[in-house]
Amino acid sequence: MTSRPPTGRPHSGAKPGATREQVERRERFERARRDSLRPDADGPVVMYGWHTVTAALRNPARRVRKLLATENAARRLSDESVAPTITPEVVRPSAIAERLLPDAVHQGLYLECDPLPSPAVEDLPAKGVVLVLDQITDPHNVGAIFRSAAAFAATAIVTTQRHSPEATGALAKAASGALENVPFVSVQNLARGLAALKQSGFLVVGLDSSGDTDLAALPLRAPLALVLGAEGKGLRQLTKETCDHVARIDLPGEIKSLNVSNAAALGLYVASRRLLAGA
Amino acid sequence: MTSRPPTGRPHSGAKPGATREQVERRERFERARRDSLRPDADGPVVMYGWHTVTAALRNPARRVRKLLATENAARRLSDESVAPTITPEVVRPSAIAERLLPDAVHQGLYLECDPLPSPAVEDLPAKGVVLVLDQITDPHNVGAIFRSAAAFAATAIVTTQRHSPEATGALAKAASGALENVPFVSVQNLARGLAALKQSGFLVVGLDSSGDTDLAALPLRAPLALVLGAEGKGLRQLTKETCDHVARIDLPGEIKSLNVSNAAALGLYVASRRLLAGA
Repeated sequence: MTSRPPTGRPHSGAKPGATREQVERRERFERARRDSLRPDADGPVVMYGWHTVTAALRNPARRVRKLLATENAARRLSDESVAPTITPEVVRPSAIAERLLPDAVHQGLYLECDPLPSPAVEDLPAKGVVLVLDQITDPHNVGAIFRSAAAFAATAIVTTQRHSPEATGALAKAASGALENVPFVSVQNLARGLAALKQSGFLVVGLDSSGDTDLAALPLRAPLALVLGAEGKGLRQLTKETCDHVARIDLPGEIKSLNVSNAAALGLYVASRRLLAGA
Repeated sequence: MTSRPPTGRPHSGAKPGATREQVERRERFERARRDSLRPDADGPVVMYGWHTVTAALRNPARRVRKLLATENAARRLSDESVAPTITPEVVRPSAIAERLLPDAVHQGLYLECDPLPSPAVEDLPAKGVVLVLDQITDPHNVGAIFRSAAAFAATAIVTTQRHSPEATGALAKAASGALENVPFVSVQNLARGLAALKQSGFLVVGLDSSGDTDLAALPLRAPLALVLGAEGKGLRQLTKETCDHVARIDLPGEIKSLNVSNAAALGLYVASRRLLAGA
């Protein structure tokens, strides 16, 4: 067995080095983006990638506006009995790629659709686990959190209107179809949103490395709201003060904080096991 | 309390829309990358971001080649008693940004260093939990897995030489310093690598949604190797056949698979709780 030290290349920066073609594609994208800017700020939700687009097409509540598919993807839609409400426009892969950033993996599908209706926080059913995101800005992380929320059958995700990414593009891709399964509530003021959840009977537990109890040792019950803060900053002071408890996840190693989507997955896992055991 | 449906903007693709300045920066980056290409394939490891760079600077085993810091970052290094073995070159933020892709968050620090020495798989201590990655290619996911491995005090991470990202750039950033804590072993042939771990006494458990037992129900013991497959593809057939067990993580919701770094975090959590309970 041979083993080799991991090596790096100069300037490998954030992504595998972009080719001239990618740079040109980005320029085309920029032109397309500028051309498409409209007077009203709220455009359609953009989705790409097989799981993300087919989940939206299978959701009767999604209003579809525009669907581009490569020849292969169109055939696969038909083979897998996905029946869009509009006829896909069959295009070459480059026609999709030029609408997206160079690193977007579109798998031959591009969709524009309306956002789903969003319930008010007061109208959420008082059951199960709600995830509350306190200004988590990275769309990949928020998308992965949606995916875990769908996997653990969470009741909803609550975010702030400001300092949260839109439910589109990279977030939708990372969610891998979960935007269709998990109601998404956006509130103006998080402390007031948490107060409304408490009013509905939710136990509100913040997750923060400064918490004084391990989450696994806390008496949990449904309905439960788990509150996660941004990487680096953690929960804001007012958010912490509004929580019934602030708990940590005990980590035996030298690094004492996890990627926020990883922390969310652990919180959902611990909560769902504990609530099932207590039921 | 008002609530607003999540909305999207056209062409919001994978990232917030790139500005003309970002496009120009990418072009500068491209020029810099082309200029820096050298006859030998293995360049230095590139690191950026506060946690990532300071963890490397604090690691006596890291051989530092080049360090760029903004004035603010250089002051903070001194304030926090980080003493690099070479004098930082104080530069303007743009001098760092132009070496990286536009979405790289460098926080005023850029480092070039040598890769750490990498143990052979046969020489890993037969204790704790080793994570084995079967052709996971996304550097953000592999970086987040390193961070969780450090948080759960994993013994090592084993990857394949081909179809794995280099321990540099975006991977190092997502690892948030964990490259300094977790030994990184790269093997030519994963099945032979797993056989070597078994030879050393490791119980080898694959995680796959097709597994016939829930991980939490499996009798686990140290030393333990947890094997994770690529998103979409899962574990390769030969990898599965080489495992002592293939286990799933039971998910009660409509989506039956997690982001791979989330699955790794859950696997580490379950294993570390079970091994502690059994100790």
